[in-house]
Amino acid sequence: MFDRIIWDELNEECGVFGIYNHREAPQLTYLGLHALQHRGQESAGICASDGEKWYKHRGMGLVAEAFGKGDLEKFKGHIAIGHTRYTTAGSSKIENAQPLFFRYAQGSMAVAHNGNLVNAALLRKELEAKGSIFQTTSDTEVIAHLIARSERTDLPGAVKDALQHIKGAYALCVMNERQLVIALDPNGLRPLSLGRLGDAVCVASETCAFDIIGAEYWRDVQPGELIVVDENGIVESTHTEKTQRSMCIFEYIYFARPDSDIDGINVHMARKRLGKQLAAESAIDADVIIGVPDSSISAAIGFAETTGIPYEIGLIKNRYVGRTFIQPSQELRERAVHMKLSAVRKVVEGKRVVMIDDSIVRGTTSNRIVRMLREAGAKEVHVRISSPPVMNPCFYGIDTSTRDELIAATKSVEEIRQAIEADSLAFLSVEGMQEAIGRKDSTAPNNGHCLACFTGQYPTEIDFEEALPALKC
Amino acid sequence: MFDRIIWDELNEECGVFGIYNHREAPQLTYLGLHALQHRGQESAGICASDGEKWYKHRGMGLVAEAFGKGDLEKFKGHIAIGHTRYTTAGSSKIENAQPLFFRYAQGSMAVAHNGNLVNAALLRKELEAKGSIFQTTSDTEVIAHLIARSERTDLPGAVKDALQHIKGAYALCVMNERQLVIALDPNGLRPLSLGRLGDAVCVASETCAFDIIGAEYWRDVQPGELIVVDENGIVESTHTEKTQRSMCIFEYIYFARPDSDIDGINVHMARKRLGKQLAAESAIDADVIIGVPDSSISAAIGFAETTGIPYEIGLIKNRYVGRTFIQPSQELRERAVHMKLSAVRKVVEGKRVVMIDDSIVRGTTSNRIVRMLREAGAKEVHVRISSPPVMNPCFYGIDTSTRDELIAATKSVEEIRQAIEADSLAFLSVEGMQEAIGRKDSTAPNNGHCLACFTGQYPTEIDFEEALPALKC
Amino acid sequence: MFDRIIWDELNEECGVFGIYNHREAPQLTYLGLHALQHRGQESAGICASDGEKWYKHRGMGLVAEAFGKGDLEKFKGHIAIGHTRYTTAGSSKIENAQPLFFRYAQGSMAVAHNGNLVNAALLRKELEAKGSIFQTTSDTEVIAHLIARSERTDLPGAVKDALQHIKGAYALCVMNERQLVIALDPNGLRPLSLGRLGDAVCVASETCAFDIIGAEYWRDVQPGELIVVDENGIVESTHTEKTQRSMCIFEYIYFARPDSDIDGINVHMARKRLGKQLAAESAIDADVIIGVPDSSISAAIGFAETTGIPYEIGLIKNRYVGRTFIQPSQELRERAVHMKLSAVRKVVEGKRVVMIDDSIVRGTTSNRIVRMLREAGAKEVHVRISSPPVMNPCFYGIDTSTRDELIAATKSVEEIRQAIEADSLAFLSVEGMQEAIGRKDSTAPNNGHCLACFTGQYPTEIDFEEALPALKC
Amino acid sequence: MFDRIIWDELNEECGVFGIYNHREAPQLTYLGLHALQHRGQESAGICASDGEKWYKHRGMGLVAEAFGKGDLEKFKGHIAIGHTRYTTAGSSKIENAQPLFFRYAQGSMAVAHNGNLVNAALLRKELEAKGSIFQTTSDTEVIAHLIARSERTDLPGAVKDALQHIKGAYALCVMNERQLVIALDPNGLRPLSLGRLGDAVCVASETCAFDIIGAEYWRDVQPGELIVVDENGIVESTHTEKTQRSMCIFEYIYFARPDSDIDGINVHMARKRLGKQLAAESAIDADVIIGVPDSSISAAIGFAETTGIPYEIGLIKNRYVGRTFIQPSQELRERAVHMKLSAVRKVVEGKRVVMIDDSIVRGTTSNRIVRMLREAGAKEVHVRISSPPVMNPCFYGIDTSTRDELIAATKSVEEIRQAIEADSLAFLSVEGMQEAIGRKDSTAPNNGHCLACFTGQYPTEIDFEEALPALKC
Repeated sequence: MFDRIIWDELNEECGVFGIYNHREAPQLTYLGLHALQHRGQESAGICASDGEKWYKHRGMGLVAEAFGKGDLEKFKGHIAIGHTRYTTAGSSKIENAQPLFFRYAQGSMAVAHNGNLVNAALLRKELEAKGSIFQTTSDTEVIAHLIARSERTDLPGAVKDALQHIKGAYALCVMNERQLVIALDPNGLRPLSLGRLGDAVCVASETCAFDIIGAEYWRDVQPGELIVVDENGIVESTHTEKTQRSMCIFEYIYFARPDSDIDGINVHMARKRLGKQLAAESAIDADVIIGVPDSSISAAIGFAETTGIPYEIGLIKNRYVGRTFIQPSQELRERAVHMKLSAVRKVVEGKRVVMIDDSIVRGTTSNRIVRMLREAGAKEVHVRISSPPVMNPCFYGIDTSTRDELIAATKSVEEIRQAIEADSLAFLSVEGMQEAIGRKDSTAPNNGHCLACFTGQYPTEIDFEEALPALKC
Repeated sequence: MFDRIIWDELNEECGVFGIYNHREAPQLTYLGLHALQHRGQESAGICASDGEKWYKHRGMGLVAEAFGKGDLEKFKGHIAIGHTRYTTAGSSKIENAQPLFFRYAQGSMAVAHNGNLVNAALLRKELEAKGSIFQTTSDTEVIAHLIARSERTDLPGAVKDALQHIKGAYALCVMNERQLVIALDPNGLRPLSLGRLGDAVCVASETCAFDIIGAEYWRDVQPGELIVVDENGIVESTHTEKTQRSMCIFEYIYFARPDSDIDGINVHMARKRLGKQLAAESAIDADVIIGVPDSSISAAIGFAETTGIPYEIGLIKNRYVGRTFIQPSQELRERAVHMKLSAVRKVVEGKRVVMIDDSIVRGTTSNRIVRMLREAGAKEVHVRISSPPVMNPCFYGIDTSTRDELIAATKSVEEIRQAIEADSLAFLSVEGMQEAIGRKDSTAPNNGHCLACFTGQYPTEIDFEEALPALKC
Repeated sequence: MFDRIIWDELNEECGVFGIYNHREAPQLTYLGLHALQHRGQESAGICASDGEKWYKHRGMGLVAEAFGKGDLEKFKGHIAIGHTRYTTAGSSKIENAQPLFFRYAQGSMAVAHNGNLVNAALLRKELEAKGSIFQTTSDTEVIAHLIARSERTDLPGAVKDALQHIKGAYALCVMNERQLVIALDPNGLRPLSLGRLGDAVCVASETCAFDIIGAEYWRDVQPGELIVVDENGIVESTHTEKTQRSMCIFEYIYFARPDSDIDGINVHMARKRLGKQLAAESAIDADVIIGVPDSSISAAIGFAETTGIPYEIGLIKNRYVGRTFIQPSQELRERAVHMKLSAVRKVVEGKRVVMIDDSIVRGTTSNRIVRMLREAGAKEVHVRISSPPVMNPCFYGIDTSTRDELIAATKSVEEIRQAIEADSLAFLSVEGMQEAIGRKDSTAPNNGHCLACFTGQYPTEIDFEEALPALKC
Repeated sequence: MFDRIIWDELNEECGVFGIYNHREAPQLTYLGLHALQHRGQESAGICASDGEKWYKHRGMGLVAEAFGKGDLEKFKGHIAIGHTRYTTAGSSKIENAQPLFFRYAQGSMAVAHNGNLVNAALLRKELEAKGSIFQTTSDTEVIAHLIARSERTDLPGAVKDALQHIKGAYALCVMNERQLVIALDPNGLRPLSLGRLGDAVCVASETCAFDIIGAEYWRDVQPGELIVVDENGIVESTHTEKTQRSMCIFEYIYFARPDSDIDGINVHMARKRLGKQLAAESAIDADVIIGVPDSSISAAIGFAETTGIPYEIGLIKNRYVGRTFIQPSQELRERAVHMKLSAVRKVVEGKRVVMIDDSIVRGTTSNRIVRMLREAGAKEVHVRISSPPVMNPCFYGIDTSTRDELIAATKSVEEIRQAIEADSLAFLSVEGMQEAIGRKDSTAPNNGHCLACFTGQYPTEIDFEEALPALKC
């Protein structure tokens, strides 16, 4: 998958982190954001408090860019939250960087949020009709308005109140000088895990953030849960009883880091099983198995193990690409794909290649890679996708845009094969995917996963008019 | 292997690129440097000419950092050379960034150079005695002085003259407004390849730079060769007849990109064979094979293929680490290793793990990784190194420092095992390494490779007093 | 007067600019902000619209720093407002940079504001009690909330509504995609002038901004006025009938640029008359008259003209001082005053010097300058101040802080003389100041000026508890 | 006079500073460069040594820009030299920033230099013929080569040797780890003064640098002098006996800071006398006297004093202009002159204005200012220039370019008057200028001043073919 230079087929998501009761809370948050950076490289920010004073910084770019020399030095505090934001074309503004900080009737609060509200536009209208003003295009500001308008004067109560109004996906961290409030939407659409580090409690979008700070994984936050951490300890409660787990299955397929566990299932292992299942469903005689780095390597290894065809490094991702200021001719511009990804000629030359990718969204990237492999001498290129065809847009935080742009929404598998110029093409079945992930859950449909992008069955009501325009994350 | 944050055990090298006869020569050089960036992230620079005017820029950091908005826009020319420089602690100065540009009696020239002269200090003294002044600590400036002091007025002749004086490793690109001169030292210690793109000729430290610009590989530059490209075409000659190929075998083991071919041998495939050979020499009963990313993945796949033990992604390298400005407590500082590398708990927990690494230099990094794997629950950690013990310093451009720092110089394999706290440890044999690389060459010792760091047999004379202090690259 | 390096005795104010009906509205706003930069060097920003799209940018530092390469390029529009903000220690944050931009029930608006509301803290509490949230510490956000909560759906009507609630000083520019709304508080505490450039109408804190863009001065905005400029032309109305002009007389004394006219009176000429009046009131036999640059030069020239003692350049202000990163010893730190201001030894050596300054606030700067003159050899230093003693804090936008810090609040003239170590000291009388400014206005007290800092008579009600903590500008 | 935005008629020069025997030598050098910044804003640099280690930094822009956060922190040493470089269009490169640092046969040295060698091109050719290479276009590198090629092994001796070869203007500071060597050319074309600060000795282009660090003026360096400061104390000697003082009189007229003294004559006082003399020579009936800031204010005050016509601030220089990134239409571009300079309408409106300027070079700036004054309502504009017509180019460091660009080289005073659109125009006579400066010196022609730009009599031989192309400073 390509980022930054070549337009991503699937945009990344956001990452949130929070910690309470550690004397280096902001520094640990900084480390945590490093681990979550694959979920967003547009901006990063941290809010912390020592119980009285606030310490705040937000900046554009990677965590290491957003926090320049000296920016973190002044930070103190035993409580902190942080956020990394994903890249979008239009709204790359410091104003939208999180956490957002607000003063309101009860004092001050900071809010960090991953996910996408499906009724944000409607709530904005209602709030504006009551006289609210908005300075960002972020859903997070909607949540803050609702908290501030609650009649509850305690932060946890006000957050609980606010959550009664919002629909969609949210993994939420709210803090004031004394309390860290953690909440997950009723469907648990986005992942959120709890950890412990000595006496400190921490929360993160992915467990890889715990490893970096040396914290122990405690448990996943449950759909509809509301957790309050303060000097009185941890209070585990719920903000709604109407819950039904529907966690985004794409976290396993593409978003999460291989070393993260979601609901106890390791992402690398799940991907490897997806590859094995894919091999079982659509094996093919070939000389070599390759994966599109980084997200499809695990599946490719699994595919190779099952088929017995050797796995090779057939595509190399350039680790050192950043924002580039080159204005070449059209001819050169097309070479830019090679700045990000290169084929290993000696691996594919004269070979029948099976190329494993995690998904096809618009199909343009797949086509570019197939061409690159043929340029490098591949005799045949067989594409195997370790997930089913993406036929429906996501309204919960994943930028799959409109249905028209999804190649599988309008084309058959054979038509897609022609479009990407592959010798053969197969997707994983929905059932095979579920089986491979391995999560069994009889209390929820689809074993507790949201499969909407594959099946069109959305776990929440969607007002298709309203849901789209909102800014994700 | 770690870079930037955690002190590298082996420092990277430099990368050079040159091109003649393309109307977007500087832009292609920029792309070429992107592909060579794993060879140096400290600084980058390009010199180009349109036959009359010169266009020059050098900057600190990655290519994308060194060339800011607008820096490349003004560049024109049909001839260009570029350079990426590796990271050193002491001399991270813009003055040392290459290419260096000089005015001299015959006009102007630019010089880019990869390697390390073993008689640089002596030459400096001689030149200074004749009244020369030096503004950098780079060997490249020594070469420029020698060129300028030649009695030959043509650039190729003057370069040839200059090369009679220097000893050691050099892969060299020199240009003026009309000519590109390419030279390799008599031992061919550093790799250098030629490519063609339509009517243009290009040269690069590694073939991966040709793929990014769409050029075709033509051939490797031979030891002692001197190649001149200008409006009269290509003149292939030699600057010495006393040649004996001794190419640094560490290029296969660690430095080069997996998609590059050196002397027709693909680096990934060579590394995979190193892993297979390592398995053949020192197999062990275990549950899982893992590799230290990125350089040891190929060997780990090979090791797994041979042993039949599954290869898993047991260590994850964080793609988004840059320079960080965090000043945590000592406790936190030790967590910083996790910013760069993470263990995948579910992969290693309760398992007997074989960890493949390409080399051990000081041993501190290996020890950190072994500990990280144990923290993540590994039951046993067996370390297998896909090269022999490094027992001797390199004087040709690789920063293995003094002999005292090399753990294998003073400790037995068993003592190293204890130092890195592994359950078992094995290195590849010198013979096995040679066999696995697969280059057969009866005309040169060691099949044309320099094995000095393993064997202590240096292909050139070394004045140990003089050779050390010089700045590499 | 010192800025940046040496803590200013009087902080500067903010500058606002607006323009309607010019196809280069944002570019002219940029030039206008350049002319207003003496009113604030902390941050600068511009909002513009082409009738549909918005163009926004804010940045820290001088206008030339806040708008980097390319930032203004993308701007289009026929309507724009801009703002430069003054330097404060605590709240130097991009969040507080203006103009602020808001979305609300009726669409979008941008707000730029100079002045200080005396009931801002109270209004915040009221608004927060109604559920409002605040993201900045700026009074401007309070105004925006009030506009958004108006029942009027047209911008001019809503602004008029909002202004019924606020008390204090405000020179205000509000815009949406189609309308520029200009308002001044009922006392006209801050200056605001109108200009014309062809068919375009412009507004600025000072007339010097018209000269830079080639606009003609039209007239000053009157206290209580509300002016709307849109496609229907210019509508001049009022937002209140209860007006009483009390313009800050310090604009003449210190803030405004010498080339600006306020209410038809040129600032340089007014200052020169202040100097002449000062000479008439407290002449002294001396050898040379010098002024503290830049603000006291005009008064010094006037003083010299009246006394016949020659005016000389006895103090030089270094034009090139910026933010410096030097950490010298204590000894050197005291030299830092010399980075900003130098005495001209040959001018003062052995002389009886009259040093003219515009005001004394805390007295520390005056003391430093007197010492500097003595170090340079001055035989006597007689200090003459071209305004009366500042004995009361300002609540309308000038950072004279609390009464305790004002040296004249607690010390007699003789005590101040001793504190600053002058040989003699005299202030201008309040009557003399009024006479010298020359504005005659029988319809308002004090000829239409606010003299509160000298007399303690505030033109508006002040709740001393509430008024202080708010952020100025 | 305009800088940066509007092309200067006269470019500024460079400033040098050096100090020996102070434990904060680099910090004092930093302060000294601040005071010398009017002599060059393109780049700044410092080299220091603690007797063993070197500390070096150079950067682009003002001193405060060139030295970013932390750059000076690491500096130590009891000996240091510094340099500020003036702005040129073509060669604004970090490579040309000074001090330059060199290693050579005898060790290391750093060189900072103000002035322009008239035989630099010839020396370069000779040096290149001997095999020297050049990395900059600076004369300073030529001097370093000559030092390195001396047979003397001591630095003072080698400098003395080198100076036998060079012709032209140079105020030179050379240092190694133990010695500070100071030299001035045989004509003393550029100013250079010595100061003392406790036990430390310092040297600077202007005495204002002593005031900033609290040093006492000791004496001016004499033409042909060579001064060595080291642990043995101060050795005052000469490098040539053939001296004849010809100091650039433009230092008094334009370059130097008003608070500096040159050869005991204060610059402000000299300028004031120039104005008085100008009034005596070409008085005119008028209403107001104004000066072009900053360099002509002193002369305007003098002119006013003599004529009795009031001096007013009729032109304001914007203090806050930096590099701007605005790309307006042609119409707006012409407004850019107003970003730098504004007329004070109320001062000049309806008035007969005498505008004092220090010099006319190309005449374009004068014309712009005359127009600006007329736009602001001036009834008549009489231009009086406090120096004679500049009719000959300077080869000693002042960028008056070729003769063709000098308006006075080809036009009569009446023609110039028409070109700048003034009502009348008068220059100061050469004799009047000499008289006003007030330096009496019977041992040298022209009282020891270089008047070449006015008279065409150059104090050194000039090879007009060779002298021009060299880079000044």
